[in-house]
Amino acid sequence: MRFQSTSSIQYPSGSGTQPSRPSHLRQVNALGLLRLLREHNPCSKADLVRLSGLSAPTVSSAVAYLESLDLVENLGDGESSGGRPPEMLRFNANRGFVAGVDIGGTRLRMVLADLNGRVVTQWATQFTERQRAPKAVCALIHDGLKRMCQEASTSLKKVLHITVGAPGVTNVTSGIVLSAPNLKDWNDVPLRTMVERETGIEATVDNDTNLAAVGEHWRGSASGVEDFLFIALGTGVGAGIFLRGRLHHGANWSAGEIGYAAVSGRPRQALEVHSTGQMERAIGGLGIEAEWQRLLGRERGANVSELAKLRATEIFDLAVDGDRLAAQIVQYAAQILADCIVDMSLTLDPEVVILGGGVGSHPELCRSTEKLLARNEFAKPQVRSSSLGTQAQLHGAISLSLSASEARLLD
Amino acid sequence: MRFQSTSSIQYPSGSGTQPSRPSHLRQVNALGLLRLLREHNPCSKADLVRLSGLSAPTVSSAVAYLESLDLVENLGDGESSGGRPPEMLRFNANRGFVAGVDIGGTRLRMVLADLNGRVVTQWATQFTERQRAPKAVCALIHDGLKRMCQEASTSLKKVLHITVGAPGVTNVTSGIVLSAPNLKDWNDVPLRTMVERETGIEATVDNDTNLAAVGEHWRGSASGVEDFLFIALGTGVGAGIFLRGRLHHGANWSAGEIGYAAVSGRPRQALEVHSTGQMERAIGGLGIEAEWQRLLGRERGANVSELAKLRATEIFDLAVDGDRLAAQIVQYAAQILADCIVDMSLTLDPEVVILGGGVGSHPELCRSTEKLLARNEFAKPQVRSSSLGTQAQLHGAISLSLSASEARLLD
Repeated sequence: MRFQSTSSIQYPSGSGTQPSRPSHLRQVNALGLLRLLREHNPCSKADLVRLSGLSAPTVSSAVAYLESLDLVENLGDGESSGGRPPEMLRFNANRGFVAGVDIGGTRLRMVLADLNGRVVTQWATQFTERQRAPKAVCALIHDGLKRMCQEASTSLKKVLHITVGAPGVTNVTSGIVLSAPNLKDWNDVPLRTMVERETGIEATVDNDTNLAAVGEHWRGSASGVEDFLFIALGTGVGAGIFLRGRLHHGANWSAGEIGYAAVSGRPRQALEVHSTGQMERAIGGLGIEAEWQRLLGRERGANVSELAKLRATEIFDLAVDGDRLAAQIVQYAAQILADCIVDMSLTLDPEVVILGGGVGSHPELCRSTEKLLARNEFAKPQVRSSSLGTQAQLHGAISLSLSASEARLLD
Repeated sequence: MRFQSTSSIQYPSGSGTQPSRPSHLRQVNALGLLRLLREHNPCSKADLVRLSGLSAPTVSSAVAYLESLDLVENLGDGESSGGRPPEMLRFNANRGFVAGVDIGGTRLRMVLADLNGRVVTQWATQFTERQRAPKAVCALIHDGLKRMCQEASTSLKKVLHITVGAPGVTNVTSGIVLSAPNLKDWNDVPLRTMVERETGIEATVDNDTNLAAVGEHWRGSASGVEDFLFIALGTGVGAGIFLRGRLHHGANWSAGEIGYAAVSGRPRQALEVHSTGQMERAIGGLGIEAEWQRLLGRERGANVSELAKLRATEIFDLAVDGDRLAAQIVQYAAQILADCIVDMSLTLDPEVVILGGGVGSHPELCRSTEKLLARNEFAKPQVRSSSLGTQAQLHGAISLSLSASEARLLD
């Protein structure tokens, strides 16, 4: 990366037109140098001169400015390669923090990270029925933030951005959750504004599966992959569509709502926002468990009360242990999933499909699905289990918070 | 568009890294000015100064350079708005030509256009069985080019670029047609190299449906739409996936191969490159005609020989005229198509779906499909008939040829 004039710098999104005032140029140089330092952390001033293509005096002035903002620390002398040992600089990752939130159907999970994206502390709570109303959720988020800040011995004022994942169709531009069938009474909820008012912190909201896809791309199974599908199987079923290095949201923010896709051999139904989709009913956690109970009842009669209580992932574990009936259930889910992946692949031909979510990231499901896809001569993308599991959306939230807060570091 | 240094110019793709030599800067200014002139054709030198942000002497020098290359014509004095009347400049659209080719299952169609994209002449021929071999097709293309050049009173040397559409999965980077089930023996055909060797003209190859999508975006039903699906129904069934203003090809160049998608209620089959897909068998032209014959035989007995010969579009016409049985056929095709659009929309949530191809662009099919989609609360994109019909791929080929030849104008 070289930059000598404003025109070669990538501006953070939302910054609008190119600045022209000299003070802005200083900001731009400082921001560019800060980015280089964060990429090559720690490094010397001479490294920054070399990496940026800026003059030594310009770099010195910008570094002094960054030090005055407490964004850069001087570590003293580094190792010499002959001459005078260079002064090493380090990005002060504790200058601020960012937060991530996942609003699930039954619980709220939160995470606080430093400016390197390192998780500092986490907090989670089960929802009561009443706590799931939008206003109550915002209050819980505020509460969680305060607890995490206390835990990390910092103050709420140092939290620069918060990204919230919601289990529903979300307009990222307006910050409104349009619908979330798994959360009662969540329709057209202006979540971003509500969270910002409640906490005083700048916020971003997006669909939880989209955040999980971002997380997998940032530090998970899709690292380095620019075109992939992330399919989440848990209580809900949905996909994050990642193309050319970023999320594809769709014209009505509902790209990836594959929980409503038709299942082979079942009659199609009209799609309704407030009902669960056919794919979700078939291979969401509850659907898999229902199929297991049906199969158990038919094959092993009544004396199966303990087995019937198994959760989807436990049934998959049983299949790994060699249980024939459990293996049938894996096959049932893998077949429906493989059919869905084929149809999506005929449209998008992705390089990789990541299976995630509490149920979807089970390795046995991944193995069986890939085996079924291998029967095809094409439309058989590589299938990988999520490496972040149910934490993926929290990592995605951290990633988006870091991007969003970058421009504000120099405020 | 303003440009004062090299860094703010969009380089044509394929030009590699930024040039730094002064001669290159002149090229860049000239190319930028040429683009402005083509957008605002005709206009004055003063207009170019204003639009470009370059100094008057720089513009004068670049215009002189462009005139020396025969790319710009001086039209003499324009209308005065008070002072000295401005000299009007015009882009010389006849300085060169571009060609487009569509290799169909049964015929070859070609088009020659000037540098404004205006079609100058066309040529088409039916294939004999032997003429469909790759080498013979290239010879036919060469023949057609010569005929068109003669017709347009120009020479082959003035054809700057040729874009060829093939009915199969095509690697655009290597220029190889990987497979084309509707053309016997077309496997791994290095079509671009073959065409370039045969004709001596720089070539681009792509899938025909992808070219049709480009055509609809350039000057058809998708004009101004940056995210849409183009679905072609003809002999074959396929889609062009257009996202963020350009084609999405997929990891293995097979994005949009929806002819292989499963049809509701029919058993899924493993996907094989060399067999026709389920969706194509159901609602490709032949599939629709077979369903019509089946229905005719059942409902109206044997005495239907004339009716049984109807082509798909004629059956659709009959439905418009009120024939009950023909209306059932429209409904049959529309239902399968609507199901397919729903599944694609659950993945991509496009703004618009364009229905094209010889069968697909029939307005009655569009109306019926949109009506079926309207039952859904979401996944119901706007559906439009192609306005370019079976010419769409030729227009797309012209568009790609114009883009590809732009950089070569200054050679």
